[in-house]
Formats: sequence, structure tokens, C-alpha cells
Amino acid sequence: MLFGAIEAGGTKFVCAVGNEDGQVIERATFPTTTPDETMNRVFGFFDQYDIQAMGIGSFGPIDVNPQSQTYGYIKNTPKPSWSNFDFVGAVKSKYNIPVGWTTDVNAAALSEATKGAGAGLNSVLYLTVGTGIGGGAIVNGQFLEGYGHPEMGHIMMQPHPNDAFRGACPFHGNCLEGMAAGPTIEARLNKKGHEVEAGHEVWDFMAFYLAQALYTYTVVLRPDIIILGGGVMKSGHFLPKVKAQLAERIAGYVEIPPIDRYIQLPALGDDTGVTGGLLLAIKEYRKAG
Amino acid sequence: MLFGAIEAGGTKFVCAVGNEDGQVIERATFPTTTPDETMNRVFGFFDQYDIQAMGIGSFGPIDVNPQSQTYGYIKNTPKPSWSNFDFVGAVKSKYNIPVGWTTDVNAAALSEATKGAGAGLNSVLYLTVGTGIGGGAIVNGQFLEGYGHPEMGHIMMQPHPNDAFRGACPFHGNCLEGMAAGPTIEARLNKKGHEVEAGHEVWDFMAFYLAQALYTYTVVLRPDIIILGGGVMKSGHFLPKVKAQLAERIAGYVEIPPIDRYIQLPALGDDTGVTGGLLLAIKEYRKAG
Repeated sequence: MLFGAIEAGGTKFVCAVGNEDGQVIERATFPTTTPDETMNRVFGFFDQYDIQAMGIGSFGPIDVNPQSQTYGYIKNTPKPSWSNFDFVGAVKSKYNIPVGWTTDVNAAALSEATKGAGAGLNSVLYLTVGTGIGGGAIVNGQFLEGYGHPEMGHIMMQPHPNDAFRGACPFHGNCLEGMAAGPTIEARLNKKGHEVEAGHEVWDFMAFYLAQALYTYTVVLRPDIIILGGGVMKSGHFLPKVKAQLAERIAGYVEIPPIDRYIQLPALGDDTGVTGGLLLAIKEYRKAG
Repeated sequence: MLFGAIEAGGTKFVCAVGNEDGQVIERATFPTTTPDETMNRVFGFFDQYDIQAMGIGSFGPIDVNPQSQTYGYIKNTPKPSWSNFDFVGAVKSKYNIPVGWTTDVNAAALSEATKGAGAGLNSVLYLTVGTGIGGGAIVNGQFLEGYGHPEMGHIMMQPHPNDAFRGACPFHGNCLEGMAAGPTIEARLNKKGHEVEAGHEVWDFMAFYLAQALYTYTVVLRPDIIILGGGVMKSGHFLPKVKAQLAERIAGYVEIPPIDRYIQLPALGDDTGVTGGLLLAIKEYRKAG
């Protein structure tokens, strides 16, 4: 039995077909252009297979409220032409199969909580630190959602005393995303992250904000593990800085697991997103009975 | 059938006996002194009744991990003589009945989610703003917990540009609790809250921090409702200030329910805590089968 997964990102779409254990069998990647063009490529890939259900983890904001008239839509987004795209509707009208639908980071949290670094744990938080910053969580076996899905990257920050940067978030200026997402490096220094030496103070500033945010998530959610994905975390020297600043900040105030167990990279690596999509598809297939 | 509830606060204990619908029948209040003296009064009250189970909502930090050796204990607390008190053990060894155990704010969240302002909603956050600031939540029918219980009052704050106060939290200085809990009024002005006129800037500062925290909880948790309890909220002029600042801060960035539905006082008033204890007792009784 085959299932489909779409990891819909702002710059690329990753599609995968997998089995009933959530193992990826085939994958394909397309740039995110217009909805028409992108979905044609997506359908071209899935047309080769007989899939039983689809799971989608999408960039946001998206409508995840099953009672809403626009459930399954991408909502207002700065990404041209994707605002109000009926993503679930497009897939359903093409294949007429059950479709699971959540945010990209929720899908990643699901896969890591099921077969990755958070397997067996009750509260698993996944944070991506890349072009933007976003978080998703599995708590007691379910997505952490309510009136909508979280926008964890947009919490306000206590400023670093030596950091003159004013922030790059178009909505909030100096929120977490505005101070620590990937593009803030270029906004500060006019260089890409990989061109900035490991000893540069910008990494300390970013670690300061990220550690402060992880502290906030810790006292609000008390997760068993926080998994850090996204492009910025691929700079190998950055994670140790974040861990050190977080450990210092918590300093016994609340109990956390040993820091190397508490803060981890995704165990499923580049398959984290699509694996979450496959698991979501399988769940939706079983629900549909 | 009768059930017992204890709302264990840092200054007073409220005990109640209620029926299987969670309705309070009798209640009694004692000052929080030593564990021995306080528990003797508690037992003197409950000895009059034949209760089937007990639910406790306690001041923290407490151990809520059922796998832990010290499950049911109050942990290290500034409150003299209560550190390492085996609360659940004391009640069990006295009455040999099922005992439910959680934080005071989780108990309040449970009652408001079941029969108060959050009835029928999926994600209910309860925040107390009093001597300290703490939060508890019910998400998908369960307490929001993980490696431990939340300590939501201790998130870091972006400072108000005109506020010279440095904060009163012994752990973090200018965290939310350090800037907006009840005692910060006296620390700033050497007056009690009820002596400070409604137009004083201190209320704007406190509303600024509280609204910022509610914004953070909103983007992290996306609750359907936030219920604000505790002594500070009893100053009637304060709530509208908090709502106005929150509405301005969110300003369409994420969707929330209409502000008067989203931010509410506890519908169960002074019975919020013990009603939660009763509901917890009933749940525990059913679980014990």
C-alpha cells in the first residue's frame, strides 16, 4: 500500500511516496513557483503511483480548523499568488483520497515524535530556524493547536545589550524571527551565513535570541525535547552556542533533561518533513476507515 | 457520593466537599502555616465527611511526573517548611482513597474548561495574576504538561521604554512575574494596589507586560480562550487596559476570537480552584474504577 506526502515550503516542494510504515520510497523536489505550475509538477509525480491517502505539511499561515469554510486553504501570505489557494481541495479533486493537512513544522514534529529524536516522548517541540522561524508540537499524541496553529517564531525578545540591529520582521521588527532567522545575517552584514566566520559576534547575538526563545517555550510548554531544524542549524558551530546559552539561562530554575538530550537536530534529517506527511496520510487513511 | 478538593495556596488553603457533578457543598479556609498545622486543619474538615476521592491543586513547584520517586511532593519552594512535603502521600495515608494531583492553575483551567468560561472549547489557558503569576492549560482534554508543569509567569519581557523599574523576581529580575505580579506595585510605589489610582502609569506598565505575555501565549499555544484570575485582576479598571493593549499588539497578525470572548475573568469566581479539585477527584475515582 502506498501513501503520498507533500512538504510545501516557500522556496521548494518536496514530494514523496512511501509505505505503510512511513518509509520513503521515492522523492522529488520542485521549486515553488505559481500554484498552477507547482501543482502540475506535483501531480505529475504522484500520477505515477496508486496512493491511498495524502499528507501535506505546508508553509503558513494555513487554515487548520475543520469547521471553517476555508479549511485546507493557505491564508494571506507574502508569497505572491499562494494567498487563498485551496490546497486540500486541489488534491482531493485530483485524486479523491483522504488528505491530512497541517503546517510544515507540525508534520516535522509528528515524524520526529513517532520515529525520530522524540520517539516515545510525550511532548515534542520542533522548531525550524531558516528563512523564517516556526514551531510545531505534539503533546499527548496530538498536534498543539487551538483557534489556529502556532506562530512561535514571532514572540517578543528582551534585547541583547550590545546588539544594535533593529530587526527584520515586516510585522514585528525585533521579534525572534526578526532577530535570528537566516536572512537577518545578510541584513546585518551583507554576507550569507556560510561566509561569516564562526567567531563573529553575530552568532552570539543569534544564539542569545534563540536560547531566550527556547527558554520561553520551556517554561510555557515544558517539552520533553526540542528539535531544531532548518538551514541556520546546518552551521555546525551554532548549535553548541545555543545549548550553552540555554543551559546558562535555565540554570536549575526548572528541570530539563540533560542538555544534549533536550536540544537535538532532527534524527530523520532531510526526510523529517515528508516522513511527517506520510504518517499524516496513514493516520487519515485509517480514520477514513 | 461525596468528593474532596484542596486548593493549596501560598497564603491560604481552601477545602471543599462536593457532589459527583463537581458542585461545592461545603467549604472551609485556613491560613497556610506549617505543613503539620495546616494539614491537621484540613483533615479536621474532611473527617466530617465520607469522601470517595480527593483532588488537589497546589502552589508549586510540584512533582507531577507519575514515574518519579517524589511524585506528589512539593519541590524546593521559598515557602519555609513546605519544601519536599509529600502532599499526596499525606492524604493517601490518612484516607486511603484515590488522589488527583496537579498545580493550582491547572485545577482552575480544568474547572473553567469543564463548566466555566471555557466550556466546550478545545484549548483553555488559565493565568493567575496575584502574589505570583502562573499559568495552566487544558489542550485536547488534557493538562498541558511534559517534563514538568509550566512556569508561564517567568518568561522574559521586552521592556517598556518609560519604565525604570528593574523587576522583583528573585530568580529572573524583570521577567513577567517580576514586572507585573501584585507585589511589584508595592515595590515600585510603596503602596498597595488598591491605594493606587486607576490613572496611575503603573497600571499601564503592568498592562503592557501582561498584554505582551498574552501575545506570547497566543502565538505559542493559540488558545481558544485565556482566563485571567488572581487578586490583581480584581481591580476592575485593569482588565480593559490589558485587553486594549493585547488587541493593539495582535492587530490582525493572527486571528483571535472577539477580544471580550477571548480574554475573560473566571466564570466560577472564587470557586474556580476547588471546583477544579472536585473534577480532578471525580476523574481519579473513575480511573480507579
